[in-house]
Amino acid sequence: MSYILYYSPGAASMAVHWMLLELGLEFETRLIDIDTGAQHTAEYLKLNPSGRVPTLVIDGVPRTESAALLMLLAERHPDGGFAPRADSPERAEWFEMMIYLANSVLPAMRNWFYAAEDGDPADAASVKAFSRRQIEGAMERLDERLADGRAYLVGDRLSTVDFLAIMLMRWTRNMPRPAISWANLATYIQRLRDMPTFRELNVREGLTEWQN
Amino acid sequence: MSYILYYSPGAASMAVHWMLLELGLEFETRLIDIDTGAQHTAEYLKLNPSGRVPTLVIDGVPRTESAALLMLLAERHPDGGFAPRADSPERAEWFEMMIYLANSVLPAMRNWFYAAEDGDPADAASVKAFSRRQIEGAMERLDERLADGRAYLVGDRLSTVDFLAIMLMRWTRNMPRPAISWANLATYIQRLRDMPTFRELNVREGLTEWQN
Ligand SMILES: N[C@@H](CCC(=O)N[C@@H](CS)C(=O)NCC(=O)O)C(=O)O
Ligand SMILES: N[C@@H](CCC(=O)N[C@@H](CS)C(=O)NCC(=O)O)C(=O)O
Repeated sequence: MSYILYYSPGAASMAVHWMLLELGLEFETRLIDIDTGAQHTAEYLKLNPSGRVPTLVIDGVPRTESAALLMLLAERHPDGGFAPRADSPERAEWFEMMIYLANSVLPAMRNWFYAAEDGDPADAASVKAFSRRQIEGAMERLDERLADGRAYLVGDRLSTVDFLAIMLMRWTRNMPRPAISWANLATYIQRLRDMPTFRELNVREGLTEWQN
Repeated sequence: MSYILYYSPGAASMAVHWMLLELGLEFETRLIDIDTGAQHTAEYLKLNPSGRVPTLVIDGVPRTESAALLMLLAERHPDGGFAPRADSPERAEWFEMMIYLANSVLPAMRNWFYAAEDGDPADAASVKAFSRRQIEGAMERLDERLADGRAYLVGDRLSTVDFLAIMLMRWTRNMPRPAISWANLATYIQRLRDMPTFRELNVREGLTEWQN
């Protein structure tokens, strides 16, 4: 199995990058710096026609969608234990939470950051206000979920849901209300940011903000 | 295995309802008519705290998120063949397309229909314009995908991706540009709407629009 991850520092590739490190797999990375527009080159568009990161080239075939890549990697590497097994009582919850994050939080964050580019700039302020409400509503709900003191979002161990959630929470760091301002989210974030692979991830992506 | 589906005619429950029929499983249904506000009763909120449909009660435990329920049902009933098997070359594509629909199309449709309720009504016109652009962009992309004449969105057989896609395309029927106005989508829609279980689904949900 060969993996080549096309990533941009701190972008939607981050959860996949973290999971690859945590799995201890061999993989290559290619920097596509979205701040310099590298996602729009003809070469990259051949791999990913929508010009976004991440792309994970798996055994020569390019694949996209961060949440899908996490689920697929969990399935290809069951020994990592990053998804409850199919016969486990937590399996349904895992699907539910992956889809919840992928369809409530992730698109709202895209809309927050790309309101002016993905649509008419005249609509951007309204779209941002709307997205902010969705994001804060979701953070509230995640905070409630963690209120019983659980360490991880699904079951009693780290899963793909946590890789995705931490990435999304990180994206709120400069928003009017950052995830870390919710008490239970703060505990959760601080615990996960302490993981050696999270530190390593930040070093590899050259990130300095949002660390313990 | 016992299944009780809480549904509203034509809502996000429709894809799950269709899949249950297509699997030929025994299941019960409970009508939660969202046009009458039935999703806001204390009783229903106990099952689904966000007051949305679908909820699928699986062996006594309520589960939500239409795309997650489709994926879970495919896994619990592998003989239906509605997801490529884990060792199949189409598996990655299946994850990718499920997540693509769940995170690009489904939330944009929610925002289109609920702009005024989920946010400040003053922002609704802008949110709708923005969402419309996202939805039409996605339909364009799905149309291109079907341009090679393939019968289904993933591989050469019906999958959960098609149940989800047809539901989403149906929702565009009264939008400024309905999915069926794209040539390849029209062929695809007409083929799938011809399925006996799709007709049965419409009868059971009491729907009369958008049929062959
Ligand atoms: N649904 C995609 C979203 C990917 C996405 O929007 N990536 C952003 C960075 S976080 C990107 O590539 N932006 C560059 C651009 O759109 O030009 C996923 O989860 O992989
Ligand atoms: N992400 C959810 C969305 C469900 C959803 O938004 N359902 C709508 C009907 S299509 C609903 O229940 N609306 C009633 C309401 O929000 O009050 C899913 O896919 O199951």
